[in-house]
Amino acid sequence: MRQKPYFENVAIIGVGLIGGSLARVMKGRGLCKRIVGIGRGIENLKDAKRLKLVDEITLDIGCGVKDASLVVVAVPVLKVAQVIRAAAPFLKKGAIVTDVGSVKQAIIDSVERHMPKGVHFVPGHPVAGTENSGASAAMQGLFKGRKCILTPTKKTNKKALSLIKKLWQEAGAEVVLMSPEKHDHALAAISHLPHLIAYELVNTVADAGDKNGEVLQYSAGGFKDFTRIASSSPEMWADICGMNKNFIIEMIEMFKARLSNIERLVRKGDIAGLRHDFSEAKVIRDSLVKEKMVF
Amino acid sequence: MRQKPYFENVAIIGVGLIGGSLARVMKGRGLCKRIVGIGRGIENLKDAKRLKLVDEITLDIGCGVKDASLVVVAVPVLKVAQVIRAAAPFLKKGAIVTDVGSVKQAIIDSVERHMPKGVHFVPGHPVAGTENSGASAAMQGLFKGRKCILTPTKKTNKKALSLIKKLWQEAGAEVVLMSPEKHDHALAAISHLPHLIAYELVNTVADAGDKNGEVLQYSAGGFKDFTRIASSSPEMWADICGMNKNFIIEMIEMFKARLSNIERLVRKGDIAGLRHDFSEAKVIRDSLVKEKMVF
Repeated sequence: MRQKPYFENVAIIGVGLIGGSLARVMKGRGLCKRIVGIGRGIENLKDAKRLKLVDEITLDIGCGVKDASLVVVAVPVLKVAQVIRAAAPFLKKGAIVTDVGSVKQAIIDSVERHMPKGVHFVPGHPVAGTENSGASAAMQGLFKGRKCILTPTKKTNKKALSLIKKLWQEAGAEVVLMSPEKHDHALAAISHLPHLIAYELVNTVADAGDKNGEVLQYSAGGFKDFTRIASSSPEMWADICGMNKNFIIEMIEMFKARLSNIERLVRKGDIAGLRHDFSEAKVIRDSLVKEKMVF
Repeated sequence: MRQKPYFENVAIIGVGLIGGSLARVMKGRGLCKRIVGIGRGIENLKDAKRLKLVDEITLDIGCGVKDASLVVVAVPVLKVAQVIRAAAPFLKKGAIVTDVGSVKQAIIDSVERHMPKGVHFVPGHPVAGTENSGASAAMQGLFKGRKCILTPTKKTNKKALSLIKKLWQEAGAEVVLMSPEKHDHALAAISHLPHLIAYELVNTVADAGDKNGEVLQYSAGGFKDFTRIASSSPEMWADICGMNKNFIIEMIEMFKARLSNIERLVRKGDIAGLRHDFSEAKVIRDSLVKEKMVF
């Protein structure tokens, strides 16, 4: 039987949906003795304590992390590196720091050179989430059956990596290791590009309908599913665009090339060509659903 | 109280999801005496008769339509005009012909000049559907609460239009009248463009991941919702592209301009600009959901 990871004192910076759900896992499965919740907003921290996600709360990063053998950083992606650098001087020797940011290379570049000697950083990204946020949305089952991608570098401590891997496995996630570059490339394709498309589709339809919903009111249910992710946080997605710039540009370029090809086929009236192109997509989409690879 | 429309003998050409569901409505609400189901495949017609959607079935259009005072054409959009032209010589004086095609101008151009004198064509498009197809998928409630767009021209008989309007109201649909041009423009934006985007997003992600699903396997649930419509019929969507060519090209151009603008902001690292752009989309999307305008 796999040995449970155990962390004694844990600090969670950002006790929102992800941080709070991981706290729930650690409490529920007895993976630590004590959790300190750290954040910028006292109301959310009070919620976290009331919900017994954490044992203590503080607004002071240094105070919060000084006894921790594990520090989980679950703040918005743009803040991850900044928060880790603020915590660094207070970390005790042997402490493990891990994050949950959805862009990896930029965080690693900014974090690794600031890590004190003997403190280990393990970059991670649980691919999970719901529309809800905050400590009150936390749930132990959030990561069950989802992928958690860890992106070790040559500087990553093997033992620390192994412990973080076990932690996510305790949460029910399937842990996948890959390079930060491969992660950022894959996420640009399957997550970042679709979000940009959803935003720009809504804007395009508004352009076509004089912004007063005249056109949109005739749409059927499909449009709702299709644009659901256009209700995501504009702040977070603007930050992600800034942090994964090159791969996102590459994906926009590839997608525009695909659209231009379709436009050319439509102009030519090449119905057979369109049918062939759409069929390729349908085969891929159908096979993904059938093999349950994705969902 | 609104008087119920009544049609005596009805012919439905194409007793699939839409045609079959409308048959169910007419039977259920007593809007006719007898329905003849007409199609190319005997198996589906036998299903339709067994399910009591229709009273009689035939593969012969002329035989099927000759006594009908209402002919509903619910075949794939590319076939609508061809089927109506085939039926035209057999139609009795005073008969009303209506269709359910998702592109209107091309059908009208091809149908109106072939209509015998005294036979009335009312172009229509119920904006409804499910993933299922065929007579066995038919259900009386399919159109309930959905929009049905009718696109009369200056040739459209007012009394025939009024009867078809009442028919769709009996089915529970909200009937909207607009010009064929406005219909085709609106649908290009809210339906045709999203389908092309879904197909091309799947193809782009496949381009990025060497077609072996290596990239796709890391995607979360959002991708599933987002690409659901990429499982639609490639044949139907290729046909629609051919029939609504100009508006679809216009929408692809507008969408590409929006994407190019985003790409420019990403290149410049203009996070505030991206945030502003995404926020505009979010406000529109959120308001549509809140006002229940769309769904």
